Amino acid sequence: MAEKLTSAANEAVKTAVRVRDSARFRREHGLFFLEGARLCADAVHSGCTPVQVFYTPQALERYAGYLSAVLPAARRACEITAPVAAKLTDTKTPQGVFGVFEIPPHTGETEPSSGAYLALENIQDPGNLGAICRTAEALGVRGVVMSGCCDRYNPKAQRAAMGSLLRLNLIAAEDLTALLERCAARGFKTYASVPDAQAVKVTQADFSGDVLTVIGNEGSGITPQVQDVCTRRITIPMGGRAESLNANSAAAILIWEMMRGRVG
Amino acid sequence: MAEKLTSAANEAVKTAVRVRDSARFRREHGLFFLEGARLCADAVHSGCTPVQVFYTPQALERYAGYLSAVLPAARRACEITAPVAAKLTDTKTPQGVFGVFEIPPHTGETEPSSGAYLALENIQDPGNLGAICRTAEALGVRGVVMSGCCDRYNPKAQRAAMGSLLRLNLIAAEDLTALLERCAARGFKTYASVPDAQAVKVTQADFSGDVLTVIGNEGSGITPQVQDVCTRRITIPMGGRAESLNANSAAAILIWEMMRGRVG
Repeated sequence: MAEKLTSAANEAVKTAVRVRDSARFRREHGLFFLEGARLCADAVHSGCTPVQVFYTPQALERYAGYLSAVLPAARRACEITAPVAAKLTDTKTPQGVFGVFEIPPHTGETEPSSGAYLALENIQDPGNLGAICRTAEALGVRGVVMSGCCDRYNPKAQRAAMGSLLRLNLIAAEDLTALLERCAARGFKTYASVPDAQAVKVTQADFSGDVLTVIGNEGSGITPQVQDVCTRRITIPMGGRAESLNANSAAAILIWEMMRGRVG
Repeated sequence: MAEKLTSAANEAVKTAVRVRDSARFRREHGLFFLEGARLCADAVHSGCTPVQVFYTPQALERYAGYLSAVLPAARRACEITAPVAAKLTDTKTPQGVFGVFEIPPHTGETEPSSGAYLALENIQDPGNLGAICRTAEALGVRGVVMSGCCDRYNPKAQRAAMGSLLRLNLIAAEDLTALLERCAARGFKTYASVPDAQAVKVTQADFSGDVLTVIGNEGSGITPQVQDVCTRRITIPMGGRAESLNANSAAAILIWEMMRGRVG
């Protein structure tokens, strides 16, 4: 018989909520929180260990396929009641499956090697971070450098990423300008994407070979010091009204242009 | 002195909430609801009449520029308290500006004339509808045909659209297959975008001249009958993992490819 939790005041539930809500708690304890049967199954497939899984009886029935991958890997699994699920959920229509996972050790590169890379500077919205990484993975970007972004283990980032943040070759950059200079010295083209009609149009930029495209903060764009060390400034030409593209649409078009010659 | 409303039970507030929440109420009364100073100012600039504007004293100070465009056009304007703003808001951090507007009479085309058009079939998420239209406007799409989509006056759609839904040349299609057949007969290329690696790659499709690209429902795609009448099926080739792009990213790439030769 599975352990049953009926109180939202239970310690395991309180810990899960802390993991969900606090980037600091996640970092200090090396844990992250996921909601949803498919996301939890994806995390297990990516090699992450679930230390605690919660599920409602309804979810156990409805998501039997996903849960059959998750539950055998879990150190502890508890059946929960609807009020406990309501406490754990971050969404309007909870599926009733939640997991607390260990943050895995870094296995990707520590520096771009060769091919097409994305660098994200100061992306602050978790939904944007996740959506951009999902697009990068779908289009076959070799790796994503992150500098000053929001926590990648934020549940909203993980949800928007649909598992891609656990699979991508992610490179954390303490000093993005230094990394860009090292890449350029090794022959990388390094492009700063900017909303400036005077910059090189993405349709006229050379994305072949080793290339790294930087996308900046949603509001303020790429910092001047990063723009200064990039080999070129590139821009998406717009035929319409001067209203700009939203961050995700602009990122999708930039990533697509970088990968177009490789996939098209 | 401006009229002051201190009760969330006030009739004007209750009506505004109904306009916000019910597509049927919007349709029957010819009204729609917007939240945010900039969105309200954009609507006035697009020629929409505010029948009722609500604002907090803090918003009046902070958004004086936007409100100086909105308030003179309003039939009725009321100062509200924080609890009333909390009743009216749909967001976590309300700006404290809300407007009820008249749905304007249709002024766009009734049928695509010439150039590059988008057609949206059964887009159900208001945020997606708005974001796709924002991208379409930014990249200079000539018009957007809508068939079976969610209500364009849904507040979430209007927010994601950043005013574009009030400016774009929008064509409501009762019968999308008939419209596509008429367009094809007049020389339009009509493309159905599908997640099928066997379809024509977007990089190899001819988007010149008169062209209409159909984007389908987030989950089920374009209906078979609409696919059948399109002159071609096109697809975004993906180099990465088989995970698909999200609806907005796929739409951004499709719209970009359609407009690329015109803006690049």
